Formats: sequence, C-alpha cells, structure tokens
Amino acid sequence: MDLYKDLLASGNKRLDMQLEFTAVIDKMTSIARRTLLIDRSRCENDAEHSWHIAVMALLFAEHAVEKVNVLHSVEMMLVHDLVEIYAGDTFAYDITGYQDKAAREQSAADKLFAILPPEQGCYVRQLWEEFESCTTPEARYADCLDKVQPFLHNTLTEGHTWQNSTPRPHAWQVEKRISVCRDFMPQLYDWCMKNIQNAIEKGWLLP
Amino acid sequence: MDLYKDLLASGNKRLDMQLEFTAVIDKMTSIARRTLLIDRSRCENDAEHSWHIAVMALLFAEHAVEKVNVLHSVEMMLVHDLVEIYAGDTFAYDITGYQDKAAREQSAADKLFAILPPEQGCYVRQLWEEFESCTTPEARYADCLDKVQPFLHNTLTEGHTWQNSTPRPHAWQVEKRISVCRDFMPQLYDWCMKNIQNAIEKGWLLP
Repeated sequence: MDLYKDLLASGNKRLDMQLEFTAVIDKMTSIARRTLLIDRSRCENDAEHSWHIAVMALLFAEHAVEKVNVLHSVEMMLVHDLVEIYAGDTFAYDITGYQDKAAREQSAADKLFAILPPEQGCYVRQLWEEFESCTTPEARYADCLDKVQPFLHNTLTEGHTWQNSTPRPHAWQVEKRISVCRDFMPQLYDWCMKNIQNAIEKGWLLP
Repeated sequence: MDLYKDLLASGNKRLDMQLEFTAVIDKMTSIARRTLLIDRSRCENDAEHSWHIAVMALLFAEHAVEKVNVLHSVEMMLVHDLVEIYAGDTFAYDITGYQDKAAREQSAADKLFAILPPEQGCYVRQLWEEFESCTTPEARYADCLDKVQPFLHNTLTEGHTWQNSTPRPHAWQVEKRISVCRDFMPQLYDWCMKNIQNAIEKGWLLP
C-alpha cells in the first residue's frame, strides 16, 4: 500500500492505519475457495463466504444447544479468514497443506494485524484466535456455520467441490468435517447426514 | 428454489425456511456494483461490499461523534442491500433509477423476507428499515461507512467509477453523498474532502 500512502494520509495516524487496513483486506475478494456459487457461475471467494456465514449467524442460533451471543459470533466470522490474505486458503482435504497451516497463518497474522493501531490489532487477533480455538459457544457456533455453508453449496451444486477433487473424498471425510454440528446443532447435523447419504447414492462422494 | 425443495427439506419447517433464505441470498454475489476492486481486477458485488463495510464498522467507531452500538450497526450492514436481490442495484448518480427505487425495494422486501419464519422476516426488515431511515446513531454510522467504502475504492483506482460514468459526476455530487459524514464522522469527512480536491485536480471529477 506504499503506492497509496499520500492518498490514504488523513492527518490522523490512527485513521491512516485503519484506512490502510481497509484497503489491504479488500484482497479477500480475490482469495478463491473451492466452493461453487449456488448459481454455478464461478467459485466463491473469502469475502463472500465471510458475509454469507455472518448473515446465517443472525438466523440459525435457535438450533444451537447452548445460548449463543450471536453478534459476538458475527464479529468472529467477519475476520476468521483474514489471515488467508497472506497465508492463502488451505483446502479442506489437502493433507500436506494442513501440515504447515498453523505456522503460515501465525506469521500472516503478525504481518496483517500490525497494520492496525496496536489495541485494534490485538482485538482482531483475539477474535481470530477464539474462532480457531473453537471452545466458546460463539466459536463453536461460528465453526458449525463455517462448515455448513459450503456443505449447503455442495448439496445444491451436485457436489461440485467433491466431484472436482482428486482424489474424490469419502463420505467419512465430509462427515468428519460436519461432526462439529453433531452435539452443538443436532438438527442441522441430521440435515447434513441425510444429504451425505444422497451424495453417496448420486456418486458425488465415495462411500 | 423449488428445484431444490427436496435437498433443502430438513423435517423442521423453520430450518427449511432458513436454509432456503440462505440459498437465495447467495445471489448477492452476482449483483455487480460500479465500484472497482482495489486490485482493479473487476467490479465488486453486493456480498463483498456488505462484508467490507461490516469489518470497517468494527474499527472506525472512535471517529463518530456519538456513541455507537457497533454490533447493532454490523447487523444492519450485513442485510442493508439484500432487497437488491429482487430490486437490483441503483447507481448513485442514476436520477431516473432513484425515482422508483423506494417502490421497487418495498416489493422486493415483501418477497424476500417472506421466505423466513415471520418473526425473523420482521427482524431483518426492521434492520433494513432502520438503515434506510438513517436516524439512529447506528444507522448514521452504517450510512457513513456505506458511502466512504466506495469513495476509498475510487480514490485508490483513479476515480474509476467517476471516470466511467456518463455524464461524469461533478465534485458537488460526490460531496453531497459524502456529506452524511460531515457532522457524524468529521475526520473521515475531511479526508474525503481532501481527496475530492485531488480528484478534481486529476480530472477524475468535474469541478
């Protein structure tokens, strides 16, 4: 963003940093995911995915077995993939990619959150870390919707991501990803399991 | 979404409606805006824009002259453009389009929010109406960021939207859009005014 330094300068150091951060995170629009949009026009990107699950969060809390502070969960969802700006997206079934995912994402976080005023950098980093730890009700809720949203897309696009993966995933691998919902959002889990059966029958997933 | 009825069926009527709504709003990813992405690769869409201003909301509240309930503002931002799924995006400087914008958007809202369980439809509609009324601190904050985000993009892309509009807008038209910030986020307003001057000097805006 050095190129834009003069244009971003406001005369207020904190505002300068916030404007620069805003400009940098626009890159989320070019981080492609493997999930096909429901209209099948192209794959979705991280910005779209983050928005989509944040809206879901406003609507699905009644299906969680614990009380969830929905808007805290929304905060997390909005920033949960930001580190991918520097670390890239790691595909769900990429075993090699997962080996150094944590290290790549930690150094991406160091770089990205340092753009903000220090206490705001900490605030966003804590939201991301809470999401990653997946222990609070809000983080578990966010995690469930983060898994169910691409599952919904796959269900409505003839298992696009699964059919276009080499090797094609087995049903147990998708079940494992969705298993975060089993105890926390059981009705949503049941809906997923029904559609995993359908995906096996259609040949979109290996048995 | 009738095509997907069987796939969306969960055995729980409310969940069915929420899943259908989630699938329908994915269309936000194909509603193009006139704003060029900062990397200049293409124009942004409504889903990306909504996500971008929601993240900004987490960071810019210190510049508002009134105390803002940030997360309430975020709720509004996430849903403020949903009616465009059926009403389409109305370009900021499209005088004809603005004449029937309200009517088009009201019938779009009727259609869209009816997909949800009734009290959730009301909840999302109220968020949208609060945003549109622009009277509460949260709605004014959302309105400021909704205007500043495309302004930032234009500032960093040599006034792309302005340069590619026929007729090219005058500086006073952009100033008028940005004027929502004058009393509510004065430092952000000053930054915009500085860059409007620059845009005039560069010929991106008519004087």
